[in-house]
Amino acid sequence: MKKLIKGLRQFKAKYVSTHQELFEQLSQGQKPRVLFVTCSDSRVDPNLITQAELGELFVIRNAGNIIPPYGATNGGEGATIEYAVQALGIRQIIVCGHSHCGAMKGLLKLYSLRDEMPLVHDWLKYAEATRRLVKDHYSQYEGEELLEIMTAENVLTQIENLRTYPIVRSKLYQGQLNIYAWIYNIEKGEVFAFDPESHAYVLPQSQLKTDEIDETLLTEDL
Amino acid sequence: MKKLIKGLRQFKAKYVSTHQELFEQLSQGQKPRVLFVTCSDSRVDPNLITQAELGELFVIRNAGNIIPPYGATNGGEGATIEYAVQALGIRQIIVCGHSHCGAMKGLLKLYSLRDEMPLVHDWLKYAEATRRLVKDHYSQYEGEELLEIMTAENVLTQIENLRTYPIVRSKLYQGQLNIYAWIYNIEKGEVFAFDPESHAYVLPQSQLKTDEIDETLLTEDL
Amino acid sequence: MKKLIKGLRQFKAKYVSTHQELFEQLSQGQKPRVLFVTCSDSRVDPNLITQAELGELFVIRNAGNIIPPYGATNGGEGATIEYAVQALGIRQIIVCGHSHCGAMKGLLKLYSLRDEMPLVHDWLKYAEATRRLVKDHYSQYEGEELLEIMTAENVLTQIENLRTYPIVRSKLYQGQLNIYAWIYNIEKGEVFAFDPESHAYVLPQSQLKTDEIDETLLTEDL
Amino acid sequence: MKKLIKGLRQFKAKYVSTHQELFEQLSQGQKPRVLFVTCSDSRVDPNLITQAELGELFVIRNAGNIIPPYGATNGGEGATIEYAVQALGIRQIIVCGHSHCGAMKGLLKLYSLRDEMPLVHDWLKYAEATRRLVKDHYSQYEGEELLEIMTAENVLTQIENLRTYPIVRSKLYQGQLNIYAWIYNIEKGEVFAFDPESHAYVLPQSQLKTDEIDETLLTEDL
Amino acid sequence: MKKLIKGLRQFKAKYVSTHQELFEQLSQGQKPRVLFVTCSDSRVDPNLITQAELGELFVIRNAGNIIPPYGATNGGEGATIEYAVQALGIRQIIVCGHSHCGAMKGLLKLYSLRDEMPLVHDWLKYAEATRRLVKDHYSQYEGEELLEIMTAENVLTQIENLRTYPIVRSKLYQGQLNIYAWIYNIEKGEVFAFDPESHAYVLPQSQLKTDEIDETLLTEDL
Amino acid sequence: MKKLIKGLRQFKAKYVSTHQELFEQLSQGQKPRVLFVTCSDSRVDPNLITQAELGELFVIRNAGNIIPPYGATNGGEGATIEYAVQALGIRQIIVCGHSHCGAMKGLLKLYSLRDEMPLVHDWLKYAEATRRLVKDHYSQYEGEELLEIMTAENVLTQIENLRTYPIVRSKLYQGQLNIYAWIYNIEKGEVFAFDPESHAYVLPQSQLKTDEIDETLLTEDL
Ligand SMILES: [Zn+2]
Ligand SMILES: [Zn+2]
Ligand SMILES: [Zn+2]
Ligand SMILES: [Zn+2]
Ligand SMILES: [Zn+2]
Ligand SMILES: [Zn+2]
Repeated sequence: MKKLIKGLRQFKAKYVSTHQELFEQLSQGQKPRVLFVTCSDSRVDPNLITQAELGELFVIRNAGNIIPPYGATNGGEGATIEYAVQALGIRQIIVCGHSHCGAMKGLLKLYSLRDEMPLVHDWLKYAEATRRLVKDHYSQYEGEELLEIMTAENVLTQIENLRTYPIVRSKLYQGQLNIYAWIYNIEKGEVFAFDPESHAYVLPQSQLKTDEIDETLLTEDL
Repeated sequence: MKKLIKGLRQFKAKYVSTHQELFEQLSQGQKPRVLFVTCSDSRVDPNLITQAELGELFVIRNAGNIIPPYGATNGGEGATIEYAVQALGIRQIIVCGHSHCGAMKGLLKLYSLRDEMPLVHDWLKYAEATRRLVKDHYSQYEGEELLEIMTAENVLTQIENLRTYPIVRSKLYQGQLNIYAWIYNIEKGEVFAFDPESHAYVLPQSQLKTDEIDETLLTEDL
Repeated sequence: MKKLIKGLRQFKAKYVSTHQELFEQLSQGQKPRVLFVTCSDSRVDPNLITQAELGELFVIRNAGNIIPPYGATNGGEGATIEYAVQALGIRQIIVCGHSHCGAMKGLLKLYSLRDEMPLVHDWLKYAEATRRLVKDHYSQYEGEELLEIMTAENVLTQIENLRTYPIVRSKLYQGQLNIYAWIYNIEKGEVFAFDPESHAYVLPQSQLKTDEIDETLLTEDL
Repeated sequence: MKKLIKGLRQFKAKYVSTHQELFEQLSQGQKPRVLFVTCSDSRVDPNLITQAELGELFVIRNAGNIIPPYGATNGGEGATIEYAVQALGIRQIIVCGHSHCGAMKGLLKLYSLRDEMPLVHDWLKYAEATRRLVKDHYSQYEGEELLEIMTAENVLTQIENLRTYPIVRSKLYQGQLNIYAWIYNIEKGEVFAFDPESHAYVLPQSQLKTDEIDETLLTEDL
Repeated sequence: MKKLIKGLRQFKAKYVSTHQELFEQLSQGQKPRVLFVTCSDSRVDPNLITQAELGELFVIRNAGNIIPPYGATNGGEGATIEYAVQALGIRQIIVCGHSHCGAMKGLLKLYSLRDEMPLVHDWLKYAEATRRLVKDHYSQYEGEELLEIMTAENVLTQIENLRTYPIVRSKLYQGQLNIYAWIYNIEKGEVFAFDPESHAYVLPQSQLKTDEIDETLLTEDL
Repeated sequence: MKKLIKGLRQFKAKYVSTHQELFEQLSQGQKPRVLFVTCSDSRVDPNLITQAELGELFVIRNAGNIIPPYGATNGGEGATIEYAVQALGIRQIIVCGHSHCGAMKGLLKLYSLRDEMPLVHDWLKYAEATRRLVKDHYSQYEGEELLEIMTAENVLTQIENLRTYPIVRSKLYQGQLNIYAWIYNIEKGEVFAFDPESHAYVLPQSQLKTDEIDETLLTEDL
């Protein structure tokens, strides 16, 4: 705690004092452009990895970046999505999984969780479609590779779930909402984005429309 | 999206490249010391305000930093708490509300949400104890002041809820877990912590045990 | 009842006696090729309208041909879907709405149902995405036309819900399952099928692959 | 699909064209006299076996012709019953099980379903009273015979469940609703009806009141 | 509290000391013959009104002596019934309502409870069949008389609910369980029992089988 | 039943006739001072052990004197608590466990209950915090001693749960509600009360404030 409390003072002393205008503006209200859904994992920091400023990302975090289908649970995910899209008018949702995810590892040994961590076990019910798909079609894989497949497919499962929310279905209907599937690689610090056309994870800049790509993006090395 | 994608590249180029050792270490596993439960609000960034590094904070975020009581919903909150305390051995939980919280504003006009944002309405059921307490005992307040009271009391309500989780009750029983109530003031960038003895929110450093306070904390200005 | 009991005897006397081979075969087990999900409405008879024989259609019927999302309710729909796809190996699912649907009319006056028919009200929660979409994008329509739009969109909503079932997601993943959206017009006795490419309801034969269309289908009048 | 699409055309060409008056009348609204609750099994076709016309039977179909008790699930069964009895004024409900029912076979090996088909497993909770009764009182039976007992008792269990619905209890109270238990034998194409007095399944015509029985029923052979 | 604590001492001093044999025997285990389900009302004391000794009545008490149907809630009622009938082998269940019941008064003004006492409101869902029946068939009554009808019908509603529990259905099936409907009149201190044959509440002794009635019961005045 | 019916007549003849004033007064309404939550066990009789008169104790009884956390179940406990505290203005709640409790024994062999008594199993979920705490910190105990610890801790678990109810949190907030933890020893007929300061169960009179203790309490023997 001591370290955190020092951090609070440091933040106040060094950051707040140098961003007076930003804080002034944030006190007027928030206008985030993106709802970022990711795992609770301590190695994933949405603001840091996207270099987003305070006020830019509305964030949901839980174990496994899971979104139960509409109606499945009176939980925080649905309410927060509704608030983000309806009250804040957010039009971009990123669902971001990550490598070495503990929740995904849990999916691989689901039965042992039943007695050991019953709440985690029950929560993973909403990733059952992921588990099932991987079990049915990737039985030849194991270890790290299997975990990677699980993680990548799970982001897509959660997007299927997301689509069942009334406000999401309504906004998608007229192209007022975009949903992106990302995977963050925690050891390399890089992100891959799902490309619906090639049905593969690719570099996110490849998904920008041509006129959005400027020189910086083309020339900068990865 | 373009801005975020640029951010990803910047992060990779400037941050990852200069923190190789950290990334190396994070790829071995996470050992966060703190579970940080806060609102999805884009103006709250747990890592920034505590100046915590990647790997230090395990984070739950939803609208209103709400934790349904044990058994009340098969949601992400309970599972993530169970995972944090049991699988990761975390021994410190911070529940952090914030000023100007949209969810708390929702509590003040709950009935109008029933039809307008039904999921938010239903989710706020788990803050009903807050609403009830404030309605019963603070009817003379209004506006900003009422909202502040609501926010402060809600953090304590959520901590009552948190205490009903089996793993939490068990760890609390032998002093293996500490729970802290924080309020983050979004316009000033500062945090107040609830002090159970005075039953008031105070500067967080005042809660450190005497031998944890070193010169830095005493001399530094706020 | 008397009429039905007479009917039973007639069936036995006239139908069973002339289809001995079929009954012999059905007593060995069922091998339906299609799961047909439709409304309870007495004017919709799946076997009659498709001229399917006994043993060909596995059928789910409820008010509004609704399929709650996976996990949303421990109801008959999910279990029956799981049984159909997993135990029976069915690879075609038709979700069939119909004109003049009482459940869809209920969606148009949802609030009045809350006290009057609370179970219908609560059940229509799983068609809320339909209601929302129509309210947001078709506010200029009314009467019959509005009801038609509601009905057509609802079939698509239910297919979104259907996609969240683990077994469905897994089978869809490798093209082992096809899902069709149909609308049955009860006064004309004809069916229209949703065409994902044109995003419109069309004559169902237009969806057959070229090599499946034989002369009969091309020449026969409608 | 091709076969079904041909069927649709055939239905239009041969049936609709010859029943113009019926279709005219159905477009005015439905006035079914009976709510028919039966299994999704492809070998059971309510309209065919009762020789009922379009517009006569309001139909619920799910795996096992199960009706969860009132309040047990926000599912299609309760809402459809409420709609049938309250909005349509239906005064006769038939719950119809059938021989060789896969859901009843599932009840006999319930534990193996837990992991294999979890939704079917959970759904069969509402037939647990059947399973329990049979286990307690018919342990000496096995195979086909046991399955028959299970099926017959399950229809009665579901009728107990049905009686807990508010609208059903109210209508039963003043004799405005009759409930019938039927078993359809899929290999012989015949139905037996439960007789509350003899507590046995009998030929359905034996349940008609004396003045309802006319010559036809008495003289016709079975 | 002081009065209760004095009571505890008095009980110890005067009752326990004079019933040593009973306490000796109770420490060996309980063998209650009856499960008594009644309201939490302070004016109803099951042991006092039946003059039953310690160890004779297994008791469920909640507001309104309500028993949710099987599966409707993971509540204390179902578990306690299961324990009573299965683990303790109890073969008699009395469901006992009472005059001037606050829960029944709540049923008469249900809508006002929605916001005022939401948990009571939601709980009364399991007495909705009572409310509906009374509303449909007794609209000409009011005041005390209406309340009496409500109370009497509610006991029967709860018995319908009780019949849906697996263990209850199984035991009823072979006559191993008897269920009694009682109404306790709190101002006169007397009980009436429902007689299924006359469909009326009568003096409970009239329900004993002839050979159970001895002189005492026949000659004693009421 | 015969014995109980005799008891009813005896109660009427001997008790009611000699307490006319009390019955007169009770017919005006109830004003209980205490909500007494205890087990359904036939050996526990709240009125007898506290020597309370009719009208003094509002009583909740279920297997294990369990109170699910707020929102966890639409059960009788929450509604009855809400009614007691809000409608009746009760300001004292006693949660009273007891020695030799069958529900607590069930907690010690929870897994065997899953198939055997599934409703009891599921109900004990709300005592999982007790089971967990005891398993984590008292693994060296067994038999009677373990059962005693379980029982004592469970009362405290249920009080944690109780604190999550909105009306309870609100009333506690301003000292308008007191909650007491009691254990009733069924073989000795005596009660111990939990003392939050010493964190131990003590004689209940030791908890009275000094000025509440009069001579009687000090001099009377136990
Ligand atoms: Zn993760
Ligand atoms: Zn907030
Ligand atoms: Zn319809
Ligand atoms: Zn079947
Ligand atoms: Zn009452
Ligand atoms: Zn007990």
